[in-house]
Amino acid sequence: MAQPLFDLENVVGQLAAVRQEWRAAQQRSNEPGGRELPSRDALSDILRGLKGVLFPMRLGPTDLRQESEDFYVGHTLGAVLHALHAQVRLELHYTARHQEAVDGAALDARALTITRDFASALPEIRRLLDSDVVAAFEGDPAARSVDEVLLCYPGILAMIYHRLAHRLYQSGVPLLARIAAEPAHAETGIDIHPGATIGPGFFIDHGTGVVIGETAVIGKRVRLYQAVTLGAKSFPIDAHGKPIKGQPRHPILEDEVVIYAGATVLGRITVGRGASIGGNVWLTHDVAPGTHITQATSRQDTKPDAAPTLAAARAALI
Amino acid sequence: MAQPLFDLENVVGQLAAVRQEWRAAQQRSNEPGGRELPSRDALSDILRGLKGVLFPMRLGPTDLRQESEDFYVGHTLGAVLHALHAQVRLELHYTARHQEAVDGAALDARALTITRDFASALPEIRRLLDSDVVAAFEGDPAARSVDEVLLCYPGILAMIYHRLAHRLYQSGVPLLARIAAEPAHAETGIDIHPGATIGPGFFIDHGTGVVIGETAVIGKRVRLYQAVTLGAKSFPIDAHGKPIKGQPRHPILEDEVVIYAGATVLGRITVGRGASIGGNVWLTHDVAPGTHITQATSRQDTKPDAAPTLAAARAALI
Amino acid sequence: MAQPLFDLENVVGQLAAVRQEWRAAQQRSNEPGGRELPSRDALSDILRGLKGVLFPMRLGPTDLRQESEDFYVGHTLGAVLHALHAQVRLELHYTARHQEAVDGAALDARALTITRDFASALPEIRRLLDSDVVAAFEGDPAARSVDEVLLCYPGILAMIYHRLAHRLYQSGVPLLARIAAEPAHAETGIDIHPGATIGPGFFIDHGTGVVIGETAVIGKRVRLYQAVTLGAKSFPIDAHGKPIKGQPRHPILEDEVVIYAGATVLGRITVGRGASIGGNVWLTHDVAPGTHITQATSRQDTKPDAAPTLAAARAALI
Amino acid sequence: MAQPLFDLENVVGQLAAVRQEWRAAQQRSNEPGGRELPSRDALSDILRGLKGVLFPMRLGPTDLRQESEDFYVGHTLGAVLHALHAQVRLELHYTARHQEAVDGAALDARALTITRDFASALPEIRRLLDSDVVAAFEGDPAARSVDEVLLCYPGILAMIYHRLAHRLYQSGVPLLARIAAEPAHAETGIDIHPGATIGPGFFIDHGTGVVIGETAVIGKRVRLYQAVTLGAKSFPIDAHGKPIKGQPRHPILEDEVVIYAGATVLGRITVGRGASIGGNVWLTHDVAPGTHITQATSRQDTKPDAAPTLAAARAALI
Amino acid sequence: MAQPLFDLENVVGQLAAVRQEWRAAQQRSNEPGGRELPSRDALSDILRGLKGVLFPMRLGPTDLRQESEDFYVGHTLGAVLHALHAQVRLELHYTARHQEAVDGAALDARALTITRDFASALPEIRRLLDSDVVAAFEGDPAARSVDEVLLCYPGILAMIYHRLAHRLYQSGVPLLARIAAEPAHAETGIDIHPGATIGPGFFIDHGTGVVIGETAVIGKRVRLYQAVTLGAKSFPIDAHGKPIKGQPRHPILEDEVVIYAGATVLGRITVGRGASIGGNVWLTHDVAPGTHITQATSRQDTKPDAAPTLAAARAALI
Amino acid sequence: MAQPLFDLENVVGQLAAVRQEWRAAQQRSNEPGGRELPSRDALSDILRGLKGVLFPMRLGPTDLRQESEDFYVGHTLGAVLHALHAQVRLELHYTARHQEAVDGAALDARALTITRDFASALPEIRRLLDSDVVAAFEGDPAARSVDEVLLCYPGILAMIYHRLAHRLYQSGVPLLARIAAEPAHAETGIDIHPGATIGPGFFIDHGTGVVIGETAVIGKRVRLYQAVTLGAKSFPIDAHGKPIKGQPRHPILEDEVVIYAGATVLGRITVGRGASIGGNVWLTHDVAPGTHITQATSRQDTKPDAAPTLAAARAALI
Repeated sequence: MAQPLFDLENVVGQLAAVRQEWRAAQQRSNEPGGRELPSRDALSDILRGLKGVLFPMRLGPTDLRQESEDFYVGHTLGAVLHALHAQVRLELHYTARHQEAVDGAALDARALTITRDFASALPEIRRLLDSDVVAAFEGDPAARSVDEVLLCYPGILAMIYHRLAHRLYQSGVPLLARIAAEPAHAETGIDIHPGATIGPGFFIDHGTGVVIGETAVIGKRVRLYQAVTLGAKSFPIDAHGKPIKGQPRHPILEDEVVIYAGATVLGRITVGRGASIGGNVWLTHDVAPGTHITQATSRQDTKPDAAPTLAAARAALI
Repeated sequence: MAQPLFDLENVVGQLAAVRQEWRAAQQRSNEPGGRELPSRDALSDILRGLKGVLFPMRLGPTDLRQESEDFYVGHTLGAVLHALHAQVRLELHYTARHQEAVDGAALDARALTITRDFASALPEIRRLLDSDVVAAFEGDPAARSVDEVLLCYPGILAMIYHRLAHRLYQSGVPLLARIAAEPAHAETGIDIHPGATIGPGFFIDHGTGVVIGETAVIGKRVRLYQAVTLGAKSFPIDAHGKPIKGQPRHPILEDEVVIYAGATVLGRITVGRGASIGGNVWLTHDVAPGTHITQATSRQDTKPDAAPTLAAARAALI
Repeated sequence: MAQPLFDLENVVGQLAAVRQEWRAAQQRSNEPGGRELPSRDALSDILRGLKGVLFPMRLGPTDLRQESEDFYVGHTLGAVLHALHAQVRLELHYTARHQEAVDGAALDARALTITRDFASALPEIRRLLDSDVVAAFEGDPAARSVDEVLLCYPGILAMIYHRLAHRLYQSGVPLLARIAAEPAHAETGIDIHPGATIGPGFFIDHGTGVVIGETAVIGKRVRLYQAVTLGAKSFPIDAHGKPIKGQPRHPILEDEVVIYAGATVLGRITVGRGASIGGNVWLTHDVAPGTHITQATSRQDTKPDAAPTLAAARAALI
Repeated sequence: MAQPLFDLENVVGQLAAVRQEWRAAQQRSNEPGGRELPSRDALSDILRGLKGVLFPMRLGPTDLRQESEDFYVGHTLGAVLHALHAQVRLELHYTARHQEAVDGAALDARALTITRDFASALPEIRRLLDSDVVAAFEGDPAARSVDEVLLCYPGILAMIYHRLAHRLYQSGVPLLARIAAEPAHAETGIDIHPGATIGPGFFIDHGTGVVIGETAVIGKRVRLYQAVTLGAKSFPIDAHGKPIKGQPRHPILEDEVVIYAGATVLGRITVGRGASIGGNVWLTHDVAPGTHITQATSRQDTKPDAAPTLAAARAALI
Repeated sequence: MAQPLFDLENVVGQLAAVRQEWRAAQQRSNEPGGRELPSRDALSDILRGLKGVLFPMRLGPTDLRQESEDFYVGHTLGAVLHALHAQVRLELHYTARHQEAVDGAALDARALTITRDFASALPEIRRLLDSDVVAAFEGDPAARSVDEVLLCYPGILAMIYHRLAHRLYQSGVPLLARIAAEPAHAETGIDIHPGATIGPGFFIDHGTGVVIGETAVIGKRVRLYQAVTLGAKSFPIDAHGKPIKGQPRHPILEDEVVIYAGATVLGRITVGRGASIGGNVWLTHDVAPGTHITQATSRQDTKPDAAPTLAAARAALI
Repeated sequence: MAQPLFDLENVVGQLAAVRQEWRAAQQRSNEPGGRELPSRDALSDILRGLKGVLFPMRLGPTDLRQESEDFYVGHTLGAVLHALHAQVRLELHYTARHQEAVDGAALDARALTITRDFASALPEIRRLLDSDVVAAFEGDPAARSVDEVLLCYPGILAMIYHRLAHRLYQSGVPLLARIAAEPAHAETGIDIHPGATIGPGFFIDHGTGVVIGETAVIGKRVRLYQAVTLGAKSFPIDAHGKPIKGQPRHPILEDEVVIYAGATVLGRITVGRGASIGGNVWLTHDVAPGTHITQATSRQDTKPDAAPTLAAARAALI
């Protein structure tokens, strides 16, 4: 009798063995059951729906007409919130899986509250995004209309995802927030941690390579160009050598700061209102309001003080 | 009676109110009607079709056979041009929406002319792309065949989009051009403004983070590596503090220039024929033909002259 | 009689003429026949299947349940291997197309062997990827669980693609390897040549703009941040001015090396075990084990020696 | 050089020649242009939407929730009406294509009126369909609930299509009506001409093979079984031997008539209120109210009168 | 301001009012909530999966290979059973919705038992279907192979659906059974009530118009042709004029009976082993084993007895 | 440890056992390998393509324009013929699988010839279908245009499938022919064996329940109504009791015959030119040209001769 082309049984068995090893190492049960984690595909559908809910005539279905807007928004919102509710429940149960006594009903109630709060926040999120669109339109001489900005600018797309993901982060579902943030990174090359706090009128031009860390705080009408890093310089370590979590470790940018392409801003420093940081500048100390920092001035500044240390070199450890 | 889980009516109402505010602020009518803007999805379909029209056996349908090439090309081209025609009309009418008296028939006639001219340009675009493929094959020792280059190199993909988008830009439909350019940015991390003028035999290796500005002019057989910026140093401002549009503000690269990874080239400077700019170099002045600029030489050059000013630091403002 | 809107016949004819020119220039036959190249779409389906085969409960279908894992894995693997087998055959025949006497049966036998070997390597690939997940979890204080890492981190996604593509590269199907590597670049902005050799426990944080060259060799538990380049400084040229292929020209990173964001490491240098390279450092010489290099120290190091030459400036030529 | 497998050029040319012959014979222009006929696919989408509009929680999307019903109905209705409007315009222009002077604006205005009237009729159509569901539930002892009837009974599906198609027929778009009626025939084997007038509470059990002609008039609470024909016996012919159109030629069934499986009822006869016609009966004359006709009695009835003539045998010529 | 084309608000409001009327009339709550009924789409997916599970190499995916059969079957079966389980729960809860105290846990346990029993029955169902295929192959001189029979014969398709639906009917989920039976009717024109009991080796040729009632009992190796009805003659009525449910009212066909096209067999009569009923025969009394009934003999038989009465004429009331 | 909900292993094993039994009984090998039978899905795609090839502006893509017709036809035809070629090869190899020495090359050559011949026949098939459309238009007083006939009449749809399937039948691929014929049956309820020979100008009105047997021969301009059977009365049996294949056993209808709804015509009889057969007539003997047969006359005819025998009653055994 002819042999099968591939020894499937054998490979399948070995792959099962590796999974067993992994589950044992991770102290996971090997019990039968369904998916206990939120799903990227589910989030992806939810986000697509939310884009339409926020901007029905621009990012909703091509054939939508203005007289049907509210119907479309209501129908889509209903479906989106139910789907989100299910994902929030998954994360809450997943997070609680190692607790001794899980109060399922309490988790479910909290999931409902989180989803409702998220719904209530949508009008404000739309308002913030409108301010971002205006900022991009006013900040880029090449922009011809606010519509072009909304349709074409990767920085706006990244902010739509971020403002939604940030709301999830604030509500206590950080895994969902993270999953919701990743598509922005993949589509635009802009990597904003959902924890970052960003004021209205924010504009990122070009954007590829931008990294904004979890505890960054950004004021109003701030502008960034491509490849800017707002990173951590170092982070405090506890007695066991483990990083202490939740410490503010990323920069604060006050209102109307501008940071040009390729600049690296590290640590819990403050860049004062209206300051501008030149292209490729490496910055690890506070900047006074209204100051203009260039590669030349930054070098002069840092030289007398001290050569950048290893700590400073730990760029972008967020 | 049980309450609904979510107060949809309320959120829908608030979202409608925010849209009203926005439309009022933007002086948009709130009248019923359909989409008045070109559609990203429509452009996306058109571009997919055009890739097949230009390279039927490589980027067309998997099961295409050479004896059906012309049939496939003709059928696809017919569908693509009609779809494009509709999008061109949308942009022309959208652009004219604030004019006092819109001559619809004249706009429609212009839309047809633009679409026909675009069709006529396709053979030349294919020829230019062939030259890009050859340049990549010859410029990268790792390339094994022209087919590998066409199938795998993000720089080629970016140029397919750019050469099509640039033609739209030249024809007077800059919004369509911009929409057509964005997928290249999303898929490759290469951000070329559709206004940039690029000669034959152009090759971008790796490519992530490359930014090329609207008025850049690039000669024949030029080569760029990843994270190169061809940006604006500053731009003239009119009496009201608004940027004056349409001024040449990005670099001119003459034939056979090479720019290595991470270099930043700013302002309306000219890099002479055959010059090469080293990795990470920051360049804001003309370079004579045949010169080799490195980080060391560029620092020496600039020091006697002057430390980079804020103007120079306004990197990549395009 | 009305005229057609577009002169399709004419454009189709001109496009055919340009294709003829190209085929003549490339010495391609113009004979009728089907696709002779591997297909991106086919590879894309294969890779999607392999992600599910390797991580069924995380990257497989949303509704998969643990008790069906092996069935799912076996069924998917069977389909994937047959599809891969067909693509391997296409590449082998394509590569051999200029040989005088092609032994079709021998090529087919080799295609089967390659595909079988690939199947056998999957369990080990899963094991390596598990080590990468653990490394990311331990290396990033923001990571909350190994599941979050697997679902959300672009660096992990890039390594899934790379470890599969590298196996194809090793097996003698470099075109397939290259096609398989491209989606990682498009989705994550991380550009790893499938030829690069990478040990277990590898972690790339953020990742946009990372470039790793074909002959790079990376040890165990190495960590990179965004925009790091492991490139070639120059490459030897033969008597005819053509680059000599296959020469090791990219860096060797020993175990537990860390390279921070934006650093550029060029040439066949060795970075010793446990060394760390600071952000934005430009490095073209060996580094002793345990050393910490920063922008300041690297400048001091290099100055006495020599300013970076053009050769060094040829960054990232891979 | 190898020959192509198939002589496509030749077959394409011959097929074009046959199309030319046909167009010449039908006095069609051969001018370039798009589709001038309504589209089956477009109607199919419209009908799917209308089923959801009429029965949102039963035939709408699986995940719809009651609190979103009105939003869903409004959004879907908006899309459906616009799509229908376009199809109505196509039919009106198509019908007017041979007229000397076509007043396009008048046709467009009429298309809008027709579509609006159709929208206004939907609530009444829903009410009629509810009465059909009740009739099926009460008429079939096997029915367990009205929901089962709506979800499973082909007779109900046929009536949903018919009541919509009949409204289009009444509005003067008989081609759309016909296209809208065909899916019912394909899915259920029940062939109701959209012209047939059918009262509330109509129930067809099993249904395969039922044929109901254009001018049939059916009262309230009538019930039919499978393979019943309500056909024409003959039709008047004019001086040129052409059938005179629009003459009533199919039966009238008064309220509460029941017709059992396989019966054939031909010609403009009246079956009186509450009469029942037995299985396989062949009926070509009036039946008094309350009468029960069986094969036996029908034979007795017809024998003294006359053997069925050819005219009678022209069964089901509708 | 321009008016919207359609008065959506108004139509939506009226449709909501009609739904309210209906729900009031049906004593339905109008409370918010999701779908409480099994879904046709869900069943349709389940049935497609089951066809593949039963005949993987014939009705499974086109590219399945024999060495992957068991993997495919297991994976698909797992997904199908979970989906079916959910639908069974929906029906059990729906059926119990009017009960005073619903024991949800007990219903869930019963849903699991029903689904498990269904799974266990699949091998026997496959065996029965194999016997049907053999019967069709042997009974039709035009059949060239058992594979042709399985792929092309509508009678076989109808039996696949029926044998699955019948199992659901036996398990106490008659609504699911009914939903599962409808696709057979739509695709083949064969209408078999899921309650009908049918022995092995059953063959329906052509099939359009066949109707088989709920309490029909069919022995081994029986053969039917198109348009055969196995119906009810009448059904007993209780004191309130309502039909008494569950009474046997359809024919019993013993082993090896053959019924030719168009024959109508009514009432709880028995057609004895090996009897054959000719085309178009109308039969309402028992037939002895081995008898051959034709139109002529049946007329003779029935005449002396009595003309078919109204009761007999109530053909096919099932 | 928790138990899985379903014992998949066990059911999978039992299903495998039943498949083994079947393969043993059918003397099938159980060897690994792919699909050796033509695929319904593949044929379905081919037929959809052919409908567009034959009627591009009516049954082709909605957005096709007349100036692209030939391109569309050529492109689609190329794809269709290659797909068909593959299916023809599958059938030829499948049919030859029990032969001692299979000459694969000869089979492949024959597959190519069959496919080429099929391509050459397409123009004539289109011509025949045009004659069918005209016949329907002229034969049905309700038809408003030839376009309505082509778009809506199930009888035309059935003839499109039949004329294509019949060509395959003539070419020696009867299994493909049968698979190609089934969709017509499913969509229209009209069951025409692909072997039936049908002249131009054929029209079936309504159509549900029509059955036309393999050796039927139908002249020009013949018209049938719903539920007409052209069946076999009996068939000769050889010494072993097996039916002798290939014997003519179905009716011959000469030109311009009309057969009304529900008539049954059995055996190798001839219905002469211009004859008409009334509704529900049961006919088993020749009919002279120009004769009109009704239920009454047919009964008179048959009575003196003989009561229909069992042989006659074997209606519709095709």
